[in-house]
Amino acid sequence: MVKTDIIIIGAGPVGLFTVFEAGLLKLRCHIVDALPQPGGQLAEIYPKKPIYDIPGYPTVGAKELVDNLMEQIEPFKPGFTLGERAEKLDKQEDGSFTITTSEGTQINAPVVAIAAGLGSFEPRKPPIENIEAFEHKGVEYMVKEPEHFRDKRVVISGGGDSALDWAIHLSDMVKELTLVHRRKGFRGAPDSVEKVEQLAAAGKINLVTEAQVIGLEGNGKLKEVVIHHKTEGDYTKETDFFVPLFGLTPKMGPLQDWGLDIDPKDGIKVDTFDYSTNIPGVFAIGDINTYPGKLKLILCGFHEATLMCQSAFKIVHPEQKVSFKYTTVNGVNGF
Amino acid sequence: MVKTDIIIIGAGPVGLFTVFEAGLLKLRCHIVDALPQPGGQLAEIYPKKPIYDIPGYPTVGAKELVDNLMEQIEPFKPGFTLGERAEKLDKQEDGSFTITTSEGTQINAPVVAIAAGLGSFEPRKPPIENIEAFEHKGVEYMVKEPEHFRDKRVVISGGGDSALDWAIHLSDMVKELTLVHRRKGFRGAPDSVEKVEQLAAAGKINLVTEAQVIGLEGNGKLKEVVIHHKTEGDYTKETDFFVPLFGLTPKMGPLQDWGLDIDPKDGIKVDTFDYSTNIPGVFAIGDINTYPGKLKLILCGFHEATLMCQSAFKIVHPEQKVSFKYTTVNGVNGF
Repeated sequence: MVKTDIIIIGAGPVGLFTVFEAGLLKLRCHIVDALPQPGGQLAEIYPKKPIYDIPGYPTVGAKELVDNLMEQIEPFKPGFTLGERAEKLDKQEDGSFTITTSEGTQINAPVVAIAAGLGSFEPRKPPIENIEAFEHKGVEYMVKEPEHFRDKRVVISGGGDSALDWAIHLSDMVKELTLVHRRKGFRGAPDSVEKVEQLAAAGKINLVTEAQVIGLEGNGKLKEVVIHHKTEGDYTKETDFFVPLFGLTPKMGPLQDWGLDIDPKDGIKVDTFDYSTNIPGVFAIGDINTYPGKLKLILCGFHEATLMCQSAFKIVHPEQKVSFKYTTVNGVNGF
Repeated sequence: MVKTDIIIIGAGPVGLFTVFEAGLLKLRCHIVDALPQPGGQLAEIYPKKPIYDIPGYPTVGAKELVDNLMEQIEPFKPGFTLGERAEKLDKQEDGSFTITTSEGTQINAPVVAIAAGLGSFEPRKPPIENIEAFEHKGVEYMVKEPEHFRDKRVVISGGGDSALDWAIHLSDMVKELTLVHRRKGFRGAPDSVEKVEQLAAAGKINLVTEAQVIGLEGNGKLKEVVIHHKTEGDYTKETDFFVPLFGLTPKMGPLQDWGLDIDPKDGIKVDTFDYSTNIPGVFAIGDINTYPGKLKLILCGFHEATLMCQSAFKIVHPEQKVSFKYTTVNGVNGF
């Protein structure tokens, strides 16, 4: 069991910045995110888009902002549990909370900060009847660790950037890479499309367009996929992995069952004094919270995270007074 | 009379960023500041210091942050009245406000945003009995426009960076530059001290240390200063200008008489819904305001400015609905 001062749910910009403000108060943090990389929406929805409303940045790339935040919090050495969704929140007898993830990882702390943005990003699953029976038994909806696929046979399906980029990346290390896409054309970046076509021409990618994976077969473990081709009809193909990459869609998810006071349209209700929820010790900051006048902007989440850390300190160290210091005077002293 | 949508009092980081958030809502702004340059405390107190707690900046120089904010707001072409202190706030019959500055400039708008930080920076005046009689008649406490001093005789007094930097800068354009300092050593940056000594050796600066200006003489206009020297005693020196640069000290100043609800220790009391004061149409944001849980941090002021602009919009355009847009989707469309 991981033990820390603040469990942060969500590795988006607000969750990341919380580590900094907590760190200034000598509080340690552990971040959980369903996505395999930090950045939240910035990394998942618009990594290449410029953002103009971060104060002090006339313009900043979404990925650049995430990289800068990662550098800013580095002195405070946060823990990360990525690619696992926070599933359960259990209050312990000593007043602390234990979070259990989708993979069974447990993290314990006296404070939980929910910075989950639009919710956890859930994969869009293709409508294949028995797909859930093969999850983590050959079916993976995300590439968390490319090494997992080394020297294996992999079928990817999808037509966007994620499918193209992983097909390119994995083609170099797997035994056989098949990319199945429903149409002839791809929606991804033109240079990625071109690269996939080059790799297909060189025999490194087995490109199957105007086709869909419609069935899965195997006995407790995936053995083959059934591909339906527009003109050639149905056929089976042996494979070790099937990786459908049809994008992710945010869902409030398991948070809904934690006993939080939630406005179904706007999010978790909080007190603007310190962005505390109705559960003492649990805070909600950034896009996931709501209060009168709320604006779903990154810069507002930064403020909310900062005020929240003051109350978090009082929970972690009830016997101490918060000593508030300016970084211009004291600099940043990490752990 | 300048007419605008929002009068912003204070050109510090929070005042500057207000222009951006107002601009996204198509509201125009005019900024008033007692200092001759934008940046507030950042420019005045710690221009060369790094700041570590601006989200997304592992470190940023105070001056760099001001420069970036100026670039960020440039599309919205704010008006500036610098080097003039906001003196009076008068409510007009149509519900709008008129601000009158120390120099008599008048600005009118339906919304006033007080982003005055620690208050207006007032010069520390040397204890010379009749000094006020010569203000703007030969005595200047700030260098607003160096050209004003071209080909004149100037006596600067002080031993800090401001005195050193202006002595260096002006020495090249004035007829005669005298720098008077009470001690032998200076408190400023070593390279500035060295430069002043070089200019003194080259006859470009008339350096008088262990001395003080103790008297002023003239008839309606400054004619000469009386210098008291530790060993040489008192003597007079003819001059066109006397510029005492003993630093600035922040004062709440005339704001105190505007009928605002002020906590004498912490600042102007506001409602955290939109950081409105007790006077409808007048808001207070950044370090100058106070509310339960308030932290005097730049990043909090950014949030406050942003929420404030939503209410400002409703005052300026009571008939319209605010349409909230993300810059990642729409970009920034200036005036």
